[in-house]
Amino acid sequence: MRVRNKPWADSYIKAHGDYIVIDPKNWLGKWQTRFIKPQPLNVEVGTGKGRFIIEMAKAHPEINYIGVELQKSVIATALRSFMADPLPNLQFVLTDGANLDEIFLADEIQRLFLNFSDPWPKKRHAKRRLTSPKFLQTYQRVLSADGQIEFKTDNRGLFEYTLVTMNNFPLRFDYVSLDLHHSPENEANIETEYEQKFSPNGPIYKLIAHFTA
Amino acid sequence: MRVRNKPWADSYIKAHGDYIVIDPKNWLGKWQTRFIKPQPLNVEVGTGKGRFIIEMAKAHPEINYIGVELQKSVIATALRSFMADPLPNLQFVLTDGANLDEIFLADEIQRLFLNFSDPWPKKRHAKRRLTSPKFLQTYQRVLSADGQIEFKTDNRGLFEYTLVTMNNFPLRFDYVSLDLHHSPENEANIETEYEQKFSPNGPIYKLIAHFTA
Repeated sequence: MRVRNKPWADSYIKAHGDYIVIDPKNWLGKWQTRFIKPQPLNVEVGTGKGRFIIEMAKAHPEINYIGVELQKSVIATALRSFMADPLPNLQFVLTDGANLDEIFLADEIQRLFLNFSDPWPKKRHAKRRLTSPKFLQTYQRVLSADGQIEFKTDNRGLFEYTLVTMNNFPLRFDYVSLDLHHSPENEANIETEYEQKFSPNGPIYKLIAHFTA
Repeated sequence: MRVRNKPWADSYIKAHGDYIVIDPKNWLGKWQTRFIKPQPLNVEVGTGKGRFIIEMAKAHPEINYIGVELQKSVIATALRSFMADPLPNLQFVLTDGANLDEIFLADEIQRLFLNFSDPWPKKRHAKRRLTSPKFLQTYQRVLSADGQIEFKTDNRGLFEYTLVTMNNFPLRFDYVSLDLHHSPENEANIETEYEQKFSPNGPIYKLIAHFTA
């Protein structure tokens, strides 16, 4: 997502250091101390404006959530939405998803969400896709043995690519929908901002998968 | 496909025994003798009215094709189309795809086509789907080590099911399209009768996969 620079972002982030981390490597092995109690940890990579992870945290107080986002202006917007009604089980982290294994311990995460990530449609940019083999390798290190990846996109090319990369890695598929909003499982679906805006244009694809031992 | 009984089918099939086999178990290990020369063997399971396999045989004289179909009236229609312009590299077989490993030797087939097979949408009928684990097991026995399965359908539920069963079996995905007719690979696509008729209603899904060693 290309975004406008937001002059207020820097100071807003600094003022809310209890809910957002900008030096994630310093928190390696200590994430649970940022929540009121240790609980299973779920992480969204590319959390965008935050609707998904905020609603998830509301719906599941028994889970600790971390929303990771690379872009300062975007995560500041997520943080601002969140501060309207802060929750004790959600933290934001300003960092690149590629570094996940430098900021989390092996097996530390129970579930990883990838929602509407940048499709990087050009072949020469394939390595930047959040479901490229190198990223999958990173996820494997930080996901627990029974952990799952949940991936949603409206981008056909990215979903086709992901079905192949995850299958070849290999990951085992637990669930596939080629039109989530017309699947029975949509009842429990929490939509991202992007999903709300663009889903009338075509199907939303979803894949849940886990690494094999 | 539910079909009307065709009174002429029986006698037509009997009259064209050079091109259709109704006692396939007797041909175990001898399929290549039915063609003018031994060549790689490709098989379509559920060949329907035959357009796909006939066009494939025309396009690829260097491959021997067998079209397997369970329903007599349907295969008789395929045979009749074929007899308008017979080819030396195509044979039809009246049999159930579930018996593939009783009529072909291990590793005998280089490529297996499944096109628009019955979706059997009810969960209790899942075992009848041509991409259910038991069928996959059968295909594994008869496919050569570098053999591939090519699967096309317009049925979303069947494609979602197949992505999961093939992934879990496991098979490795070589190609996935969620809208074949709008993919670059469609240039080489040969359409079935069903595909020509129903593709305006929605996307055609395609998956190419191979068994792992």
